Amino acid sequence: MSIIPDITAVGSMALDTVTTHYGTHENCLGGSAVYFSMSASFQAKVGLIGVVGDDFPKEHTELLKEHGIDLEGLEVVKGAKTFRWSGSYLNDVNAADTHCTMLNVFATFEPKIPENYKKAKTLFLANILPSLQMKVIEQMPDSYKVCDTMNFYINSARDELEKVFEKVNVIVMNDGEAKMFTDCPNLIAAGKKIMERFSPEYLLLKKGEHGSLVFGRNGFMKAVPAFPTERVIDPTGAGDSFAGGVLGFIARNGRLNDENVTEAVRYGTAMGSFLVTAFSIDAFRHLTLEKIEERVEALRFLSK
Amino acid sequence: MSIIPDITAVGSMALDTVTTHYGTHENCLGGSAVYFSMSASFQAKVGLIGVVGDDFPKEHTELLKEHGIDLEGLEVVKGAKTFRWSGSYLNDVNAADTHCTMLNVFATFEPKIPENYKKAKTLFLANILPSLQMKVIEQMPDSYKVCDTMNFYINSARDELEKVFEKVNVIVMNDGEAKMFTDCPNLIAAGKKIMERFSPEYLLLKKGEHGSLVFGRNGFMKAVPAFPTERVIDPTGAGDSFAGGVLGFIARNGRLNDENVTEAVRYGTAMGSFLVTAFSIDAFRHLTLEKIEERVEALRFLSK
Repeated sequence: MSIIPDITAVGSMALDTVTTHYGTHENCLGGSAVYFSMSASFQAKVGLIGVVGDDFPKEHTELLKEHGIDLEGLEVVKGAKTFRWSGSYLNDVNAADTHCTMLNVFATFEPKIPENYKKAKTLFLANILPSLQMKVIEQMPDSYKVCDTMNFYINSARDELEKVFEKVNVIVMNDGEAKMFTDCPNLIAAGKKIMERFSPEYLLLKKGEHGSLVFGRNGFMKAVPAFPTERVIDPTGAGDSFAGGVLGFIARNGRLNDENVTEAVRYGTAMGSFLVTAFSIDAFRHLTLEKIEERVEALRFLSK
Repeated sequence: MSIIPDITAVGSMALDTVTTHYGTHENCLGGSAVYFSMSASFQAKVGLIGVVGDDFPKEHTELLKEHGIDLEGLEVVKGAKTFRWSGSYLNDVNAADTHCTMLNVFATFEPKIPENYKKAKTLFLANILPSLQMKVIEQMPDSYKVCDTMNFYINSARDELEKVFEKVNVIVMNDGEAKMFTDCPNLIAAGKKIMERFSPEYLLLKKGEHGSLVFGRNGFMKAVPAFPTERVIDPTGAGDSFAGGVLGFIARNGRLNDENVTEAVRYGTAMGSFLVTAFSIDAFRHLTLEKIEERVEALRFLSK
């Protein structure tokens, strides 16, 4: 039975081996589409577009299904292997050192969008090749489009990335990416440059432990603090989980505007803050919307 | 004619040579007591305790007087030279590389507190030797005490610094100092450690461009964003200017409590954000309380 999801999300599906000061976890569930979808699932019905090999453990697809994530858009390539990434955060909890990337099925990924997914109001483009992001955009021209990216594509596929930025309603980036993209060491100046150049409705700049900045049109700005977290066990996927919280909020409350964008970012912040307290997506396994809303309330108090 | 200041402040008086990406300024007015007093002067009457040589330009003392700063506590040592510091921010706008420190009269500084200064309600101890901070504390046992420090004293005078921390109502530190002091890479954990160990009423942790964190008792916390600043011309003295804004607020509104501490930190944040837009204290020359309050209002909006 085909459903129309609230959000159609496209991104990577991975098996990650991650080392932090709290240990090493091997071949755990990861990938931008996974983090995003799991995070958004507490507020919205997500249709996931991604690709895995037939080595992808059934328990992982079961977990995604348990969270109400629709997997009609998940392609399973027989006789092939899932994308694998390994990295560590021993030097810097905010930035991974990549040890090994094996693209496997992800190397030839061509997102195929089920017809019903095309009717989703909201589209999230996680960090995949900008040319693939664009192909998805072209098939969902009327959707509310939010994109993320990563440093790798800023360097290797800048022209295509710029075309994506021109087409989306909301751009999500982290601080280092914004500085790299604009070649500008001051983050405020970098944010303003991106707004001037692409004029999205909003630019959400993630600063990890330092929270987020929101840039809107006509000089509109907001700052949202991070949730104070003493033990960051594994930061992998925090950015995608942030986006999941934001888009989950949008699914429940409508598109971003100057009145609600701060609250939306608080949901994103809350989701990121839960995620980093355990490896992989483990912190989402037993999370509830009630606990998320408690944390959003704590974030409201924190900056009041 | 002797006056009772709102705030008695003790700290360094210096002639600084500062290099940033915006140029080099030689022998400009600096020192923690200067930045603090100039900043606080927009809201409070400050009595300044410090020492200079007779090479200290008269125009500098005139400027301080014009801002209503009482200089009865300023010692001028004849035939001696003022403390000089030179440094640059070419590598990192958040941390100076010190090129040269000539303590001169500051090496043998013994703060002498005029009797009327001892009656001030509030005492600010800028970053001087902790043993000197303690001597001042002992002479003003009933005052509301706020102290700052710096990495140098954390390493060189830790025992004395801990004694100071035990005696003050409010501790002001920057993020790097808090991490160094507690040997704790996570800032939230570092802040909690300092609260547990010394139990001040509040700990204000400055994070430069990332704003500030407030730690109170019983787990109370607040986060205040920085004012978005595109051009940081010279960050020297931003921390002391922050403290000046906070203590100016206290002079007008009373001691910090859970209700007003965020607003007090916004005044501190506003003062720091003005200061960094020019070399030395130049940004304070033509500032008005009206402009300060406009910026505080902008900071309120930023995190609302």
